[in-house]
Amino acid sequence: MSQFSFPSSSVLPLNSSKSDSFETQQQNSEKPIFNPHDINPNLLQKLVYDALVWCSLHGLLVGDRTAKKSGTVPGVGMIHAPISLLPASFPEDHFKQACELASIFNELFDRVSLDAKFLQDSLSRTRKVDEFTSRLLDIHSKMIDINKKEEIRLGLHRSDYMLDAQTKSLLQIEFNTISSSFAGLMCLVSELHRNLLGLYGNQLQLDFRKVPENASVQHFAKALAEAWREYNNPRAVVLVVVQAEERNMYDQLWLSDVLRERYPFCFSNKTCGKLVVVKLSIFKRIQLKWKTLAEIDAEGKLLPDGTLAVNGEAVAVVYFRAGYAPTDYPSELEWRARLLIEQSSAVKCPSIAYHLAGTKKIQQELAKPNVLERFLDNKEDIAKLRKCFAGLWSLDDTEIITDAIERPELYVMKPQREGGGNNIYGNEVKEALLRIQKGGSEEDAAYILMQRIFPTVFPALLVREGIFHKDHAISELGIYGSYLRNKEKIIINEQCGYLMRTKVSSSDEGGVAAGFAVLDSLYLS
Amino acid sequence: MSQFSFPSSSVLPLNSSKSDSFETQQQNSEKPIFNPHDINPNLLQKLVYDALVWCSLHGLLVGDRTAKKSGTVPGVGMIHAPISLLPASFPEDHFKQACELASIFNELFDRVSLDAKFLQDSLSRTRKVDEFTSRLLDIHSKMIDINKKEEIRLGLHRSDYMLDAQTKSLLQIEFNTISSSFAGLMCLVSELHRNLLGLYGNQLQLDFRKVPENASVQHFAKALAEAWREYNNPRAVVLVVVQAEERNMYDQLWLSDVLRERYPFCFSNKTCGKLVVVKLSIFKRIQLKWKTLAEIDAEGKLLPDGTLAVNGEAVAVVYFRAGYAPTDYPSELEWRARLLIEQSSAVKCPSIAYHLAGTKKIQQELAKPNVLERFLDNKEDIAKLRKCFAGLWSLDDTEIITDAIERPELYVMKPQREGGGNNIYGNEVKEALLRIQKGGSEEDAAYILMQRIFPTVFPALLVREGIFHKDHAISELGIYGSYLRNKEKIIINEQCGYLMRTKVSSSDEGGVAAGFAVLDSLYLS
Repeated sequence: MSQFSFPSSSVLPLNSSKSDSFETQQQNSEKPIFNPHDINPNLLQKLVYDALVWCSLHGLLVGDRTAKKSGTVPGVGMIHAPISLLPASFPEDHFKQACELASIFNELFDRVSLDAKFLQDSLSRTRKVDEFTSRLLDIHSKMIDINKKEEIRLGLHRSDYMLDAQTKSLLQIEFNTISSSFAGLMCLVSELHRNLLGLYGNQLQLDFRKVPENASVQHFAKALAEAWREYNNPRAVVLVVVQAEERNMYDQLWLSDVLRERYPFCFSNKTCGKLVVVKLSIFKRIQLKWKTLAEIDAEGKLLPDGTLAVNGEAVAVVYFRAGYAPTDYPSELEWRARLLIEQSSAVKCPSIAYHLAGTKKIQQELAKPNVLERFLDNKEDIAKLRKCFAGLWSLDDTEIITDAIERPELYVMKPQREGGGNNIYGNEVKEALLRIQKGGSEEDAAYILMQRIFPTVFPALLVREGIFHKDHAISELGIYGSYLRNKEKIIINEQCGYLMRTKVSSSDEGGVAAGFAVLDSLYLS
Repeated sequence: MSQFSFPSSSVLPLNSSKSDSFETQQQNSEKPIFNPHDINPNLLQKLVYDALVWCSLHGLLVGDRTAKKSGTVPGVGMIHAPISLLPASFPEDHFKQACELASIFNELFDRVSLDAKFLQDSLSRTRKVDEFTSRLLDIHSKMIDINKKEEIRLGLHRSDYMLDAQTKSLLQIEFNTISSSFAGLMCLVSELHRNLLGLYGNQLQLDFRKVPENASVQHFAKALAEAWREYNNPRAVVLVVVQAEERNMYDQLWLSDVLRERYPFCFSNKTCGKLVVVKLSIFKRIQLKWKTLAEIDAEGKLLPDGTLAVNGEAVAVVYFRAGYAPTDYPSELEWRARLLIEQSSAVKCPSIAYHLAGTKKIQQELAKPNVLERFLDNKEDIAKLRKCFAGLWSLDDTEIITDAIERPELYVMKPQREGGGNNIYGNEVKEALLRIQKGGSEEDAAYILMQRIFPTVFPALLVREGIFHKDHAISELGIYGSYLRNKEKIIINEQCGYLMRTKVSSSDEGGVAAGFAVLDSLYLS
C-alpha cells in the first residue's frame, strides 16, 4: 500500500510557485495502488464486525457521550473508541525522522524550562492579553522569587506532525508538554490493526508487520514509576489530576493499570536485599489517587519539609491529565491547588516551567533564527529540529501580516490557548488580521501565525459509535517522548510510541479537519 | 475465610427430623470468621472502583439493557457484567467432588443420547402436554426413521449444583446439554478476583491462590476446534446459532475469539508436512458464522452428500447458543432450520438426542432405581452420581404428592421448559398439585417434583450497573464438561472450569433466589 494520494485542495503551499505546485499535484494524482473504498462489501462487513468485537474485548473504549455517568463511573456507558478500520499509510523514512526527533525535543524542552528569563520575556506580551497564560506566569514568577528548583524533572510529551503533501516534508504542528493523551489507547489501536491484517491481510494484500508495534503506555508507565522511585518515599502515591468528568477515562486507566501491574517495587523498609524467599507481599505496588484540582485544594497541604500531602498521604509524582485549559480553573480554588502543587517537592508532570515551554508562543520563539542555539550545542540536532519547523511568525511581523491578508488560505492563526479547536482558517484569518491592525490593541499578542500545512487527503474507512463511514481524511502523527532526570543525570530520554489521528476532511475546504477524528495507526510505505 | 454461615430459613430440610435440624442450625449460626459486610468503607470503595476498571479493560462485559442496539451491535452500549466483589467461599472437597463428576456425567449423557427408545419412552407422556418437547421428539423420531447416526458427537455441558446447608451435601440442580453459557466470561471473573486479592489480600486476609483458576473458555474452544478438525473439511465453518438479540454476546464473542486465535490449523491442501519456513498464511483460522435459526432456514441447504451449506459455505460444527427455549421458535421457519441441521452431517452441539437427554424429565428418570445401571458399568461411578442426586419424582407418585401438598415448602415443581425462572415454590406448589389432582388432565406430565435445596445464605457484596450492594445471597456452582468422540474413540472427556452464580436471597423466603444474580468465583475453604 503506497501512500494514498488524492488531489484535494485548490490552494497552493507557501514557498512554491504556481507552476511548480501544479506539477506536483499532477504527480500526486496518479491512481492509488490500494483504495480501501474498493474493498468488497462482504469483506468490509467482516472487518467492521471483527474490529468492533476486538475493541470491546480488549478495552479499546471511551465513555459514551449519550450515556449517563459515562464520564464519572468506570464500567458503565462504554462504547468502542472511534477508530480507523485500517492503518493510514505513512512513509517509513518520515516516521523514522519523527522518532529520531523525540529525544532531541525532550532535551530542548528541558533546557528551555530551566531558562526562566527566556520564558518570562518571550511571554511578556502574551501575558497582557491572555489571562490563562498570565496566571501560569504568576505561579512561575513566584517560583523564581522563592528560588524553587525542580531537581527531578519528568516530561511525558507528544510532538505532533503533519506530512505536507506538496513538499513531502514532515512539519511539526505543536509540542505537548501537558496531558499528552491517548498513550493508553494507542497501543491497542496498533494491536487491533495488526490483528485485522493478520486475519485479512492476504485478501487485502497488506502485511501486518508493516504496522509498527506501539508500546507508548508501557513507556509512560515506566517513566512515572522511575520518577516515583527517584522521589524515594515508598509510602508516597502518584496523584493524577483529573477533570471531574472525563469520557477518555479508559486511556488514563490503562496507564494506571500498567503502572500498577508492571512496576511493583520492593519495600525499602523490608529485607529485600537479603536472600529471602520472595513473597508478593514484600513488593509495594505504586498507589494512584485521582483528584480534581478542587479536591486537591480541599484535601491537600504542604508539610514543613515541602512534601505535598493529600488527604494525609504523601505525593511522589503529580501527573496532570487536567489543568491545561482555562475551563479547568473555574474558580480561585483550582489556581490555589496548582500553586500548592508547584510549591511542593513532588515531581510534577509537568512543572509550571515545562507547561509554559509548551505554549504556542514559545514554539514560535524557538523557530526564530539563532534561538535553538541558545539551548542546544549539537549542530546536527539543531538542523534536524529546524527541518521540521513550519513557518511560524508573531503578529508584529508586518511583512507576513500583509501577505497573510492577501493569501489567508496559506496561514493558520493559532491562539495561545491549549486544547485545539480554536484555530482560525481561511477568510477569517484575513478578517481577524484586519481587525487587529485597525484596533491598535495588544490582541495580536494572543495569537501566532503558522504556515498552513496541506497533508495528503486519502480515502478512509472510519468506525464511530458502531457505525461505519467511508470518507476522505487527513492524518496527524504524534510521537510520544519521555524524559526523566535528577540532579546528576538523565535517567530516561526516549521516543516511546506514536499516535495517529485521522480526521474527516470532506466537509472542509482544503484539508484541515472539520469533521470528527478517530484513532489510527501507521502502515509503513 | 470459612464458609459464611447465616441462619436463614425457618423451613426444615427433607429427611431430617425437627430436633436434628434445630441442632444443625445452631451449629451453623456460629459467628462467621470473615464477614465482607464489615470491610471498612474506604477499602470497599477502592475494591469497587478497581473491580469496575478491571472489568472494563479486560472485556468482562454485557450489553446494557437500557442502551439501544446493545444486543445487536458489538462495541456499543456496553456495561460491566454483574459481579460479586469477592469470591464466594466453597469447601474444597465439595468442589473436587463436583469436578470429578464431570467426566462421568459426560459419558452418561453420551450413552443416554444413543438410547433412542429410552428417550422416546421416558418423554412419551411429556410429549402430550409440552408442545416444545413434542416438536423436539418429532425431529428425533424422524432421525430414528431415517436411521441417522451421529458419529462425531460433541457435548459442551454444564452441571449445576447447590450445597445443601443442613446435610452438607452437594446436590445437582440440573444438567445442561444445550447453550451452556458464561464459559467465556467466567475465566475473567476468576482472574478479576485473583487480581483483587493480589492487591488487597493482605488487608482482607485472603489469599488469591485459593481462587481456582478457570480455563473454561479455552477448553470449550479446544473442543469446538477438535470437532471441526474431526469433520475434516478445511473450508468448512463453525456455525453459531444465535438469538436475534443477545445482551450476553461478549460471553459468546470471547469463545469465538479464543477459538480463532488459539486454534489455527494447517491447510490440509498445502505443504504443511514438509520442512518449510512456516508462514502465517499457510495456517487456516477457523471461520465462524453467526446466524439465527430463521437465517439458517433462508440461507441453508442440504447438499446431496449430507453437507449443511449456509450461504454456500459448508458447515463443520453447529454450536447452539439459541434454540433451547420455545421463544426461539416463533414460527415454522425455525423448526424447519432445526430439522435441516439435524439431517446434515455437521457435528451438532447438541444433537437432538443430546438436547432431549438434558430435559428435566430425563434427569428425573435417571434418578430412579436401576436406571443408571442401564448406561454405566462402573459401580463406583454410579455411586458417585447417585450421591449428588437430589430427590426427584414424577407427578404420578401419589405418596410424594400427598407429602408435597402437606409440606410444599420442601419441594420445587419444575416444568419441562428450559431457561429457568419457571419453577414453582412454596404455597403455589400446593395449589398447583391440588389443581392437577382435581383436573384429571395430563398436566402432571409437564412437571417434575424436586427436593428443595437450602444452600447457606451468606453476606455478599454485589456490583451491578456501576452500583454496589450489600446483600444476603446464595450461590450455585456450575461445572463445565466437554466431550468429543468419533466412531472409534473418545477424543475429549474432561472437566473444564466452573461457573459460580450468586443470587440475592433477601427478598425471598427461604433461600431461593428472587433477586438478581451475579457472576462469582470460588474461594476454597
